Amino acid sequence: MAELVDLRSDTVTKPSPGMRRAMAEAEVGDDVYAEDPTVRALEERTAGLFGHEAALFVPSGTMGNQIGMRLVCEPGQEVLCDADAHVVTYEMGAAAAVFGISTRTVVSPGGRLDADQLIAQVRPKDNWHLTATAAIAVENSHNRGGGLVQPLGELQKLWDWSRKADVAVHLDGARIWNASVASGVPLSTYGRLADTASVCFSKGLGTPVGSVLVGSAERIATARLWRKRLGGGMRQVGVLAAACLYGLDHHLDRLAEDHEHAQLLAKRLGVDPSSVETNMVVLDGVEASLVAEAAKARGVLVSQVSAHRIRLVTHLDVDRGAIDRAADVLSEILNR
Amino acid sequence: MAELVDLRSDTVTKPSPGMRRAMAEAEVGDDVYAEDPTVRALEERTAGLFGHEAALFVPSGTMGNQIGMRLVCEPGQEVLCDADAHVVTYEMGAAAAVFGISTRTVVSPGGRLDADQLIAQVRPKDNWHLTATAAIAVENSHNRGGGLVQPLGELQKLWDWSRKADVAVHLDGARIWNASVASGVPLSTYGRLADTASVCFSKGLGTPVGSVLVGSAERIATARLWRKRLGGGMRQVGVLAAACLYGLDHHLDRLAEDHEHAQLLAKRLGVDPSSVETNMVVLDGVEASLVAEAAKARGVLVSQVSAHRIRLVTHLDVDRGAIDRAADVLSEILNR
Amino acid sequence: MAELVDLRSDTVTKPSPGMRRAMAEAEVGDDVYAEDPTVRALEERTAGLFGHEAALFVPSGTMGNQIGMRLVCEPGQEVLCDADAHVVTYEMGAAAAVFGISTRTVVSPGGRLDADQLIAQVRPKDNWHLTATAAIAVENSHNRGGGLVQPLGELQKLWDWSRKADVAVHLDGARIWNASVASGVPLSTYGRLADTASVCFSKGLGTPVGSVLVGSAERIATARLWRKRLGGGMRQVGVLAAACLYGLDHHLDRLAEDHEHAQLLAKRLGVDPSSVETNMVVLDGVEASLVAEAAKARGVLVSQVSAHRIRLVTHLDVDRGAIDRAADVLSEILNR
Amino acid sequence: MAELVDLRSDTVTKPSPGMRRAMAEAEVGDDVYAEDPTVRALEERTAGLFGHEAALFVPSGTMGNQIGMRLVCEPGQEVLCDADAHVVTYEMGAAAAVFGISTRTVVSPGGRLDADQLIAQVRPKDNWHLTATAAIAVENSHNRGGGLVQPLGELQKLWDWSRKADVAVHLDGARIWNASVASGVPLSTYGRLADTASVCFSKGLGTPVGSVLVGSAERIATARLWRKRLGGGMRQVGVLAAACLYGLDHHLDRLAEDHEHAQLLAKRLGVDPSSVETNMVVLDGVEASLVAEAAKARGVLVSQVSAHRIRLVTHLDVDRGAIDRAADVLSEILNR
Repeated sequence: MAELVDLRSDTVTKPSPGMRRAMAEAEVGDDVYAEDPTVRALEERTAGLFGHEAALFVPSGTMGNQIGMRLVCEPGQEVLCDADAHVVTYEMGAAAAVFGISTRTVVSPGGRLDADQLIAQVRPKDNWHLTATAAIAVENSHNRGGGLVQPLGELQKLWDWSRKADVAVHLDGARIWNASVASGVPLSTYGRLADTASVCFSKGLGTPVGSVLVGSAERIATARLWRKRLGGGMRQVGVLAAACLYGLDHHLDRLAEDHEHAQLLAKRLGVDPSSVETNMVVLDGVEASLVAEAAKARGVLVSQVSAHRIRLVTHLDVDRGAIDRAADVLSEILNR
Repeated sequence: MAELVDLRSDTVTKPSPGMRRAMAEAEVGDDVYAEDPTVRALEERTAGLFGHEAALFVPSGTMGNQIGMRLVCEPGQEVLCDADAHVVTYEMGAAAAVFGISTRTVVSPGGRLDADQLIAQVRPKDNWHLTATAAIAVENSHNRGGGLVQPLGELQKLWDWSRKADVAVHLDGARIWNASVASGVPLSTYGRLADTASVCFSKGLGTPVGSVLVGSAERIATARLWRKRLGGGMRQVGVLAAACLYGLDHHLDRLAEDHEHAQLLAKRLGVDPSSVETNMVVLDGVEASLVAEAAKARGVLVSQVSAHRIRLVTHLDVDRGAIDRAADVLSEILNR
Repeated sequence: MAELVDLRSDTVTKPSPGMRRAMAEAEVGDDVYAEDPTVRALEERTAGLFGHEAALFVPSGTMGNQIGMRLVCEPGQEVLCDADAHVVTYEMGAAAAVFGISTRTVVSPGGRLDADQLIAQVRPKDNWHLTATAAIAVENSHNRGGGLVQPLGELQKLWDWSRKADVAVHLDGARIWNASVASGVPLSTYGRLADTASVCFSKGLGTPVGSVLVGSAERIATARLWRKRLGGGMRQVGVLAAACLYGLDHHLDRLAEDHEHAQLLAKRLGVDPSSVETNMVVLDGVEASLVAEAAKARGVLVSQVSAHRIRLVTHLDVDRGAIDRAADVLSEILNR
Repeated sequence: MAELVDLRSDTVTKPSPGMRRAMAEAEVGDDVYAEDPTVRALEERTAGLFGHEAALFVPSGTMGNQIGMRLVCEPGQEVLCDADAHVVTYEMGAAAAVFGISTRTVVSPGGRLDADQLIAQVRPKDNWHLTATAAIAVENSHNRGGGLVQPLGELQKLWDWSRKADVAVHLDGARIWNASVASGVPLSTYGRLADTASVCFSKGLGTPVGSVLVGSAERIATARLWRKRLGGGMRQVGVLAAACLYGLDHHLDRLAEDHEHAQLLAKRLGVDPSSVETNMVVLDGVEASLVAEAAKARGVLVSQVSAHRIRLVTHLDVDRGAIDRAADVLSEILNR
């Protein structure tokens, strides 16, 4: 049987030989003492890419997002976001459980940011009675929104409003690379429209482990304490950071290829290609478990988002040939 | 100048001479040792009214709601409710801050319960990745919904669904008395459709202090520990519970009068009377601060819900004459 | 059978007719809106007694202590105290559970404050690795220490050190009245040696419910928010505050009588009178459950602190005759 | 100048060429989906070594300890340990801040476990008033105790008692390898005397990153959820786990060499060798900052534990020659 085509997520990529070599040769130090030169290089480079003062390596996007929100929201205050945001869907209620931060949500069709919809829900800080809205969290590209890229105009509108309203903006940029490559908007532009941002290297960039949180120098110093408190302080992390630097050097531009592959899949599977903005294809109205089972039996792994929704994610480890194979298998299953 | 007409809230009522007498004569004991006979009587009577096994006196509706939600939701799990619910709006983010419980919300027009809308947002418990929805909170009558009474059909639908889905229902019944008097639905029917419920005596029933949480005997035993942990364990509380018993005896049926007063106000102020279901009248599209200031200058206190919304609440300490006076003052201000 | 003599705790006192009358006649308002004149009077008077800027009425000593510690300690930092302190023994782990505050303890013989012993355990704030000690909590008089009065010299030494070390001091002054009456040290002196203090009216002062937290105006403003978040915001609380004011007026000086009664009991029961500093007598080396049962059968209630320790507490509702009766009963049981 | 001799900690070791090769060649998968074969192999092997059912890879010893304690202690309950334990000293108050767990401590001379001393402080669970002691945490070897090995008799006594008392035991086994090699007590014996244990590979075993938590299958399933909630869920972690397996294969037995080196240092520096039980040497009564500065200037890094205490830690990256060099430098400084 041919090799598996794993379209469940872009998190499943395995480090390439070149990336493994970079890891094996990484110069390292004890990062709990802030002495790992490779980690420092990654942090400085990432901060620079997003136009922020400082950055901190964290073991996961969840830790990056959660600490990021804590930096701009006190216990007892709330973060506002959409009801399908990763931070409230897939992070196990950490904001509340770990930090005492409330989340309140609006249902945004497709996860698309509607600045006015969120702004209408904000509650003021200077009030004895109300739970104060300290921050708004935005996800870009949006996972449960099928990889959609948030409209720059809405991001800008939210940001401009937030400066006057004294409300912070946190960017869940786990896949900001895809958003930037797809839209042509520079990373620094997205970075400029957020107080804190968490970005992941273990998704489209193909590294085994690693996320980075960016923000002001003062906030990142606080983040370092919270990282240790959460158990995210690690030692010779340069072995992981080296992979992240390698990903930036070699796997960023090629995301365009993943996006083309997603377009191809969409066309082959009868999905409106205009609904596919980055590296995800959503099949709605299917018997998800049946389709997933049948595809798995033929070597294609897909993700069941719900009873009637399948998600396909293209990535580094799925080349054009694999895409064609997956399209063959899935179209046959769907056409039955 | 005539006496103030305070329509800001039904929490402002002062104990009547009869109620004060009941308090002064109350038989008491040390309730931290569960030895206060008047508290016990109130707890038993309230549990009975709502058809639950047990009940616990708490110092506020906030404590009743928050402990109630904790009884049916573990840290890291979430409670779903509408974005204007008291539990997420006016309780200072306690669910997250105190208990590590997430809240996720939908925007329900007017706060009216739409069972399907909430059910669509529920996330399963048996999943490694998702923040599990453990409970749904319903507010009846709904404060920010202008005192609306939740439709019994929706409550029943949610309840029936919840039994199959293993999701709990918490009732924020701060003003369940108003809902029951207005709709004719017995308290026990509302109680039957919730796993836990918090009801307040310091609103329409006119007592100085006091709420009661009802639920199963096992849950209420746990609630007792949390009450102590939150600092809600008090000593000779019979002095407060006596007022609550008095309120049940003397102030429950008369809520119908408050509802008539609200209808009167609505008519006089050009508000659609069908939008007034209990003891609240909402004036929308006004310059709230100007109206409030002008009314205050003439002895009528109202509540500013937002920049363009005023809320009027009728209660025990506002008789027909005061209602007329308030209507005169406000209609003149609004007609300017 | 003669009336019960309840020596379990000074919390069991029932409001006297005079106190009930004061409650029944109290002028009240909605304290969530900070409009209750009697509460305001109590807060101002208590702040004044302890020489602090501001004060806040809370429903229990537990809430007073816990919010007090939160005002001087951030989540992730620690409060240091002795291992038998009320705040770690009887408050259900609230500091951690509610506020995310660590407690670390030393075992102080008899609960007696040894400033050097505590100071030796303090950990600095300016360190990436250490859990920072933000505050030290002192209990005076000390409940599990059998009502001992903390040595003024040690309090002063701790305070002087704390000013240089940037470590706060919280006073658990649930029974500070007893300490002051026994030692002759003014309340204001004790108040001067603490950043925050919680004092209770429902113990020796004989009120049904009520504690007050004192501190700086800024801290008390924050305390008000936390009180609401914990569910301690109540409405016409003047009915309770009136009893507290009555207690200050009528029951403060008479604590000397409780102390004499405790001396009497000690002498009659063969306890070293010098070990009895206020209103508690500790019987060590007894079969606690047997003694408690036998005494109860004869109308005397005592408290079992552990398998071999009994505690007797004198208070307002136990007069000289009752003390003699209890001494007769207990000495007979102990001499068997 | 000769190469630095870094005696600050055994966490500073850098992966050897062999270990790097093992990492570069590791077979990996997505561990958030529990599909990484190398991680699975490490978890199974570690569980086996300690005689437990299951194990979970975590990014740090802090996460292993904190989740381990959470598995045996609910929010509002307390963990008892010594006041110098790593879990209360160096983990940033995580138990309280993250999990709502209280810690209470006794001051144990040198960190040596005295089972009776701890047992005397335990408070029962079936009590409305007391903060319940759910678990006791033991550290072996003990970091701030200068690497002391806990007496097996005390561990056994505590364990036997704990089974009857329904109190759990958590082992902070960050350096359990050193304890086992030094005492000859098998890892499985230490494992048998604990409900949960956290062990680290990034200390004496010389890996860049990695700890493992062991326990029952049911508890470890819960731990997996908490790991994700804390942001410790990582993807192709096999690259790190491979280093841990390599460490077990190649660096466990050689810890005896580190212990000999510590003996050598002790002798050369006038420290009682019997006080050195594993790989740490404590210099007391020195001007710590002066000594550290002077040593650093001559290429020897040491750790300042307090103003008058220096700690030296031997490890994989410090060979006999480096030990001699460090001894020369330090003895000269100390003899000045």
